[in-house]
Amino acid sequence: MDFRSDNVTGAHPAILQALHRANEVTSMASYGADEITARLVTRVRELFEHDSLLAYPLVTGTAANAISLACLAPPWGAVFCHPQAHIQVDEANAPEFYGAGLKLVPVPGPAGKLDVGALAALAGAELHGVHNPQPSVVSISQASECGTTWDVAELNELAAVAGKAGLRVHMDGTRFANSLAHIGCTPAELSWKAGVDVLCLGASKNGALAAELAIFFDPALATEFERRRKRGGHLLSKMRFVSAQLEAYLSDDLWLANARHANAAARKLVAGLAKIPGCRLLYPVEANEIFITLPANVNAALTAAGALYYPWPSGQPGEEAYRLVTAFNTDMKDVERFIATATAA
Amino acid sequence: MDFRSDNVTGAHPAILQALHRANEVTSMASYGADEITARLVTRVRELFEHDSLLAYPLVTGTAANAISLACLAPPWGAVFCHPQAHIQVDEANAPEFYGAGLKLVPVPGPAGKLDVGALAALAGAELHGVHNPQPSVVSISQASECGTTWDVAELNELAAVAGKAGLRVHMDGTRFANSLAHIGCTPAELSWKAGVDVLCLGASKNGALAAELAIFFDPALATEFERRRKRGGHLLSKMRFVSAQLEAYLSDDLWLANARHANAAARKLVAGLAKIPGCRLLYPVEANEIFITLPANVNAALTAAGALYYPWPSGQPGEEAYRLVTAFNTDMKDVERFIATATAA
Amino acid sequence: MDFRSDNVTGAHPAILQALHRANEVTSMASYGADEITARLVTRVRELFEHDSLLAYPLVTGTAANAISLACLAPPWGAVFCHPQAHIQVDEANAPEFYGAGLKLVPVPGPAGKLDVGALAALAGAELHGVHNPQPSVVSISQASECGTTWDVAELNELAAVAGKAGLRVHMDGTRFANSLAHIGCTPAELSWKAGVDVLCLGASKNGALAAELAIFFDPALATEFERRRKRGGHLLSKMRFVSAQLEAYLSDDLWLANARHANAAARKLVAGLAKIPGCRLLYPVEANEIFITLPANVNAALTAAGALYYPWPSGQPGEEAYRLVTAFNTDMKDVERFIATATAA
Amino acid sequence: MDFRSDNVTGAHPAILQALHRANEVTSMASYGADEITARLVTRVRELFEHDSLLAYPLVTGTAANAISLACLAPPWGAVFCHPQAHIQVDEANAPEFYGAGLKLVPVPGPAGKLDVGALAALAGAELHGVHNPQPSVVSISQASECGTTWDVAELNELAAVAGKAGLRVHMDGTRFANSLAHIGCTPAELSWKAGVDVLCLGASKNGALAAELAIFFDPALATEFERRRKRGGHLLSKMRFVSAQLEAYLSDDLWLANARHANAAARKLVAGLAKIPGCRLLYPVEANEIFITLPANVNAALTAAGALYYPWPSGQPGEEAYRLVTAFNTDMKDVERFIATATAA
Repeated sequence: MDFRSDNVTGAHPAILQALHRANEVTSMASYGADEITARLVTRVRELFEHDSLLAYPLVTGTAANAISLACLAPPWGAVFCHPQAHIQVDEANAPEFYGAGLKLVPVPGPAGKLDVGALAALAGAELHGVHNPQPSVVSISQASECGTTWDVAELNELAAVAGKAGLRVHMDGTRFANSLAHIGCTPAELSWKAGVDVLCLGASKNGALAAELAIFFDPALATEFERRRKRGGHLLSKMRFVSAQLEAYLSDDLWLANARHANAAARKLVAGLAKIPGCRLLYPVEANEIFITLPANVNAALTAAGALYYPWPSGQPGEEAYRLVTAFNTDMKDVERFIATATAA
Repeated sequence: MDFRSDNVTGAHPAILQALHRANEVTSMASYGADEITARLVTRVRELFEHDSLLAYPLVTGTAANAISLACLAPPWGAVFCHPQAHIQVDEANAPEFYGAGLKLVPVPGPAGKLDVGALAALAGAELHGVHNPQPSVVSISQASECGTTWDVAELNELAAVAGKAGLRVHMDGTRFANSLAHIGCTPAELSWKAGVDVLCLGASKNGALAAELAIFFDPALATEFERRRKRGGHLLSKMRFVSAQLEAYLSDDLWLANARHANAAARKLVAGLAKIPGCRLLYPVEANEIFITLPANVNAALTAAGALYYPWPSGQPGEEAYRLVTAFNTDMKDVERFIATATAA
Repeated sequence: MDFRSDNVTGAHPAILQALHRANEVTSMASYGADEITARLVTRVRELFEHDSLLAYPLVTGTAANAISLACLAPPWGAVFCHPQAHIQVDEANAPEFYGAGLKLVPVPGPAGKLDVGALAALAGAELHGVHNPQPSVVSISQASECGTTWDVAELNELAAVAGKAGLRVHMDGTRFANSLAHIGCTPAELSWKAGVDVLCLGASKNGALAAELAIFFDPALATEFERRRKRGGHLLSKMRFVSAQLEAYLSDDLWLANARHANAAARKLVAGLAKIPGCRLLYPVEANEIFITLPANVNAALTAAGALYYPWPSGQPGEEAYRLVTAFNTDMKDVERFIATATAA
Repeated sequence: MDFRSDNVTGAHPAILQALHRANEVTSMASYGADEITARLVTRVRELFEHDSLLAYPLVTGTAANAISLACLAPPWGAVFCHPQAHIQVDEANAPEFYGAGLKLVPVPGPAGKLDVGALAALAGAELHGVHNPQPSVVSISQASECGTTWDVAELNELAAVAGKAGLRVHMDGTRFANSLAHIGCTPAELSWKAGVDVLCLGASKNGALAAELAIFFDPALATEFERRRKRGGHLLSKMRFVSAQLEAYLSDDLWLANARHANAAARKLVAGLAKIPGCRLLYPVEANEIFITLPANVNAALTAAGALYYPWPSGQPGEEAYRLVTAFNTDMKDVERFIATATAA
């Protein structure tokens, strides 16, 4: 009953198997000039219905986000994001580091999603020459840090504001597959067709060992990406082993199957917990994260039974809230046992 | 009738005169090893009643703020400040640049002053290992960007919160003299005795040509200052000419006399404008800046008469607000003429 | 016959197998708090006979080098290295990036090894206050970029100069195992006992998929390492999969067995080529790299036979030189075929 | 008898006078939008016979160099310069700081001037994708750190190599006026007509209090300059006081008159010292710096007489060398007394 995070999981067997296949060839060009990486790009273009996108494998979401943002904003630029965005609170200032001192400007909004009206006001404010940080990018998380998703209509509204203010749109897609599985549209519809310029597509939390993909839908924005990746120490010599993970991930519907399983586990968990008095959801459950209050006796019983999960600010005095994260390999029996334990408390 | 800013002014004659005196000696050690700079430090120590403080002359407030903050926070650190702070909105990301990517975290509050309770909540939040930006500094402006001041009791309250959260206190004192003149305590009481670790003391806006002073009350915090100043290109070879400005500024009460004049001009202006219907102050006038709504006809009449000043967001639809700044050399006749013009509109 | 580099190779089966074992546990603490990473540190301490060293897994040598150097030198510091050092010419300025603008100062020397006397002169020059870059680190490559090694006596001589000049010693150990296999001493003797402060120990080129280890023999030097690693996007959530590679690498003598094979293949290759007129070694062959001139007809015959390798500056007009790199998985039959082809040309 | 540096001098009276004139106007637009700055640019365009150049006032040469280089080279770029260049050894890594980690690559050459053939070899070396620092700029000092000058033919030769290798040409013109006075051509001939892209023109050492000018002959290269200047804290609010110094400096031939005086003093000094046995010039004296060996008794006599100057590496064991710098305000009587003292020793 480990619901701490989807990053405590291991790798999906199909992805481990892809490493073996990649190892069958004795030697292969290094630094991403190999055929697996080339096939991967082709696969991404098919999947996203986009002939000219560029896609770069990386091993962490922090690297993908930070290097991408550095390509989109100058050092004197401003990147707008939610105050709870991963890039703002969980990446040890990596975006500012890669961006040579660019600034993240928080724009609040409910349930982990920045308020688009507030963005319009902030990014549209009159500027005074070289003094003000230059509005450059809006970054959103799909799914958000509160487990909510941006649907196509919301993305279009965001893109309209961004376009008017001259902002590029960056999507931290650590849990893009979970959002996509929830919303049920095509990858293209949830990204470039809805105005996203750069998508950092996660795989590590959804079955890979360590693999993320920075996808630039406008190649002109990516001219500096490869230099920045190398300079950050993120150009792996045996890149084929990252690309192989991503190729398997994006083949045979694996990414969506994994995400659907995680989402289903979350729904099942919520359905069970919702019947228990004192369990209140903080946000709608749209992907694979649940933020919920648990009465003290329920929490005590779960902990005693060995369940693992982290506390989360409830925002209400007297209430203790927690985060539960399901994953591609969550055992439904664990879900049932968790519910049973909580119900019996 | 130029009320655009206190930086459109020239230099006070006593300060220009100090440049002449500094030029009388044919040769003098360069890079701050001269006797004028040495005398300046002695003078600052007397004035602030502090035997071991270190004081470094600079030519801009942006440099003083950014280099100081880089000494107080690591690259993975967080500096808390008001969303309208000069370091946040008017310095083109200089703090992030000098701080190698440190992060400014905005903490709102009324009238340009961050809310101390909100600071306590933010800076005191539980941290997760190396992921979160490390709470390091709180920076306030004295006077604030809304022309309000922090009094001793407020500073003590701030320092208590800062101390508990392990934050250093940085004061952007561009208009420190104006605050000091308003509050009427000693320089020490308004700085280190109230918990300020580093004061960036402005002179450029109050009579100097280009002179600011970074004052470190704890020498241990300044170990990297000189390297950082040099590396930023801010170690002037003929430093004596900056130090001479500051020596004159801090002698014979010049700084306070200048500030009192500017403050008095602001008060006189407010007293006159307050009688005009439709003129509403956005914030209390405590230093030398006035933020006020002006009816359209008043604004038109003033503009027609050649008055200069900048618009400012009123925060209320249908109201147009403006900023008026007085200075050490504001001609009281200009104040009178401005009031008369506005009154007659 | 692929002798382009030891990074065109795949993974050793024992290392792939370690990934499987690491995947057997359903969930494990993320970000390096797992038991495999803990076991790895214990293993490294045993192997290097050092109870308090700290060891951090990474996925590239560039990251290991750059993050380590940033811990050893301030932004205004100087890092001395050979003009052909990997950190100087092959890492796209990563050391300067992570080091916030530190400076690499080249110190020439024969066969890829900086001249220790020249280092003493440069690092010992009189300094002028804050103006000069601050001598901070000397970095050497083991094996060097010319395939030569630093033996214990040479390291001691280097350490003496470094100690006198107040420099820390950084060793880029991408091919440390190859050097160790050649020299035949203990890991401790070739590192901290010979004055090395930080060793970046490579595994990627010698059997791993992507795994390097930054080893700090003085824990006091590593206080910032974890923040810097996270900020660079190099803290993998599923760190266990990197640690598992390194654990396997450093177990059962695998690292040395692999290195011995690569070295033996190089020696065999050299022995065969040395008999061919016009084949001149540029440097002694001590590890697994050969730098050799090849007559045009020999080169043509090899290329026609499908052999792969890169050109290298011969330093002599009219001579064409090449680099041949052997690896842990070099097939001795390929070596024989290469020699036979060259001999028959 | 102070020959320590031309930066121990004060200001020329005409330049101090210009500050008074600039102060006569009560208020003036800030941040360089004033009429004096506008007039200055016009003056520079006339003087350099170039209609579209852009010129930015600054207060230190370090800032001028570092900000300019950051406009010319990307963070992963290489800037070639002499190993003794001011940017390499005397600016505390400011170029690397402003350039976000760009790399300075030393190219040796006699008498402070890099060898153009060696530059061609280094900058023209084959590159490997994103791994190598990208050759971007060659920077020279006019006059060099050894007091020698680049004449027009030498500049043309340099520019040809630079052009072929795709390098921009940056000239650190701290003592440009001294070179110009020596060479006797026009400012245009010694800069853009000879292939210089950016000239950092010094005034501080030649009569100003603190004033330098970054001149971009190709406006397209300057698009980021103003943002970078502001972000570095180098945009002075009362910029008119820097511009006024530069306007006076470049008017009425003041800059050249000052330089001619300094050069003449150097020549007179050399002529006198050359007759003393044991006095050996290290480099030809072309501007206002003399590098010369002095026998111990001569040095002792001079020191006893109160003469000030700094030691300099002679490059020969057993010889002690020194640097003597003359300036715009060197008293010829001091020169005579220096020679007399040395001769009598």
